[in-house]
Amino acid sequence: MPAYPDRIRRLTAAMPGHDLQAVVLLPGPNLRYYTGLSFHLMGRPTLALITTDQPPLLLVPELERSKAESNPIGAIVHTYGEDPESRQAAFHRAAQAIGLARRRVGVEPLRMRWLEERLLEEAAPGIRMTSADDALEPLRAEKSPEELAAIRRAVAVAQAALNETIPQIRSGVSELDLAAELVLRLLRAGSESEFPFAPIVASGPNTALPHAVPTSRTLQPGDLVILDWGATVDGYISDLTRTFAIGRVDPELQQVHAIVAEANGAGRAAAGPGVACRAVDAAARSVIEAAGYGAAFIHRTGHGIGLEAHEAPYLRSDNEALLRPGMTFTVEPGIYLPGRGGVRVEDNIVVTERGAETLSSLPRELRVLT
Amino acid sequence: MPAYPDRIRRLTAAMPGHDLQAVVLLPGPNLRYYTGLSFHLMGRPTLALITTDQPPLLLVPELERSKAESNPIGAIVHTYGEDPESRQAAFHRAAQAIGLARRRVGVEPLRMRWLEERLLEEAAPGIRMTSADDALEPLRAEKSPEELAAIRRAVAVAQAALNETIPQIRSGVSELDLAAELVLRLLRAGSESEFPFAPIVASGPNTALPHAVPTSRTLQPGDLVILDWGATVDGYISDLTRTFAIGRVDPELQQVHAIVAEANGAGRAAAGPGVACRAVDAAARSVIEAAGYGAAFIHRTGHGIGLEAHEAPYLRSDNEALLRPGMTFTVEPGIYLPGRGGVRVEDNIVVTERGAETLSSLPRELRVLT
Repeated sequence: MPAYPDRIRRLTAAMPGHDLQAVVLLPGPNLRYYTGLSFHLMGRPTLALITTDQPPLLLVPELERSKAESNPIGAIVHTYGEDPESRQAAFHRAAQAIGLARRRVGVEPLRMRWLEERLLEEAAPGIRMTSADDALEPLRAEKSPEELAAIRRAVAVAQAALNETIPQIRSGVSELDLAAELVLRLLRAGSESEFPFAPIVASGPNTALPHAVPTSRTLQPGDLVILDWGATVDGYISDLTRTFAIGRVDPELQQVHAIVAEANGAGRAAAGPGVACRAVDAAARSVIEAAGYGAAFIHRTGHGIGLEAHEAPYLRSDNEALLRPGMTFTVEPGIYLPGRGGVRVEDNIVVTERGAETLSSLPRELRVLT
Repeated sequence: MPAYPDRIRRLTAAMPGHDLQAVVLLPGPNLRYYTGLSFHLMGRPTLALITTDQPPLLLVPELERSKAESNPIGAIVHTYGEDPESRQAAFHRAAQAIGLARRRVGVEPLRMRWLEERLLEEAAPGIRMTSADDALEPLRAEKSPEELAAIRRAVAVAQAALNETIPQIRSGVSELDLAAELVLRLLRAGSESEFPFAPIVASGPNTALPHAVPTSRTLQPGDLVILDWGATVDGYISDLTRTFAIGRVDPELQQVHAIVAEANGAGRAAAGPGVACRAVDAAARSVIEAAGYGAAFIHRTGHGIGLEAHEAPYLRSDNEALLRPGMTFTVEPGIYLPGRGGVRVEDNIVVTERGAETLSSLPRELRVLT
């Protein structure tokens, strides 16, 4: 797999521009992206040290040695045993091998823990830590063909699971039971068991809450029902939303659905290389504002997807960043009327050389079930 | 709920003995246990500051204000907005309100992140951080009647789900599909969607791996099949394992199952107040060693369960700590024969005033399915 060595090369090439002499990666999406290694953040410290002038180094518990030695980036592996002295000694050896003392080292602010920080500061006197986010994010945002293929499969799995679940969306079933049926079908369709997020199933007035959690409420005639779900394939995720009607619903809510579907289309149509993130938000938002529901669209239009369910780019009204080919994200406008109901229609998009392609293809009109 | 103020009182009473003047809790099981508040660890810092001489303080993003203000411990709530200046200013105000500068502050080594650490060090000059684990763990290990009731329900849900899944355990089904069926039934039986861990389904030679991940391998006659699964109820978890046979299996593997079941019983029988953790391990291990399989029992006998799937007490050969009434843990001996197969039988136990009670009641003999 030449992808990982190439990513390391591009990261180390970018580091001087961010005034970084080393980067420390902890278990999570960055470690997976740059080293091909997938670990959970556990009690035993596990990390990668990437420098501009030395081969990468992996520091792992002894029981992970063979997994670490299978790394595709030619990293040297240091291990430690179960006793605390062995742990600190391994950090000392690793820091000396790579010359970490007094270096300016980039860390992941949301991953680096007190546990690893103490061990590194003890092992590398004078180490100065700063955020590595600006160096790590740009590469991950532009998906390679292989990454895009995984996201396409994650979309296909999510869509297949939804189609298998539709017969279960009916009056009398509870939100919780419907969520369980959807989970079963996601797994059957081929999703990994680490979903991007627990599926949202909201019905009736609960649809007015963008982050509703499934409850024991049963679907009733006249309800709107929102399903917001995704699948994971090879670590990459999809994130879709569709809104259904159980029998006849309030004509205003039907109209709201038509407005949201139009806003979804406008947002997707606005995306393309060189387009500002805020312009995609504006395209979707203006449809909803023009219809008089601007105050009821209470969240951003979308977010990037990849190894994480929420990553760059963020489609927000204040984000001036420009879209680049290979960026993948959601377009998910919504209208929420407290006490009455809400609608959201969410698709997944990739920016291409000349425009944007919508990866998801489920129907977007309001589907009326019984 | 008087439970939470009482827990805070007990924690602050214990802090001087650990030379702590304050404790910082981040989203996770400790924050939930001591404050009743359940948050995910996200990009926006969220924390509780507990001191010996001031009311507790919660520092949360503005959008979590109402949730934080519903706290059951009388904590004062500080919030910040979306701009970085507002965030640092809120940390300054919170640190001043509680007098955090130059204090010796206990942190969670596996939770405290570089993000929060920088903000705290900037806001509280001279703050000295140390591990709070020894102050936080003892209270959590002894379950209250309410906590034990939640664990009992989590065991009941897991057992009901297994019983509903047994008809699906048959020749021709894949490990992945069987795991999906078990997940559906866990959710239907009432588990929260945040499982303690993704269920393990291993068949044939895969049963020789204690941490097997479900694969596309289909169950075949002559296979052993291990299911290791749990449920979550009110945040508390269960963790069970049963081993099944598909048709006739190798007589030695049948014998191995009988030995493991006996070791499981010996471990459970050894548990009680004042008993060392290592004695429970020794009771189970000695059965397996006496049968000549000591080298094939390659992990500890068990671990504590509660808000976390792995917490104190740890039933290890080197753990001299004594069991106390209210402690809940697994007893899960196993024998693993590489290339051939493995067996594990796992139950959940609570230490009582006079002995120990086994919370799980599924049959422990080898059940032969087709």
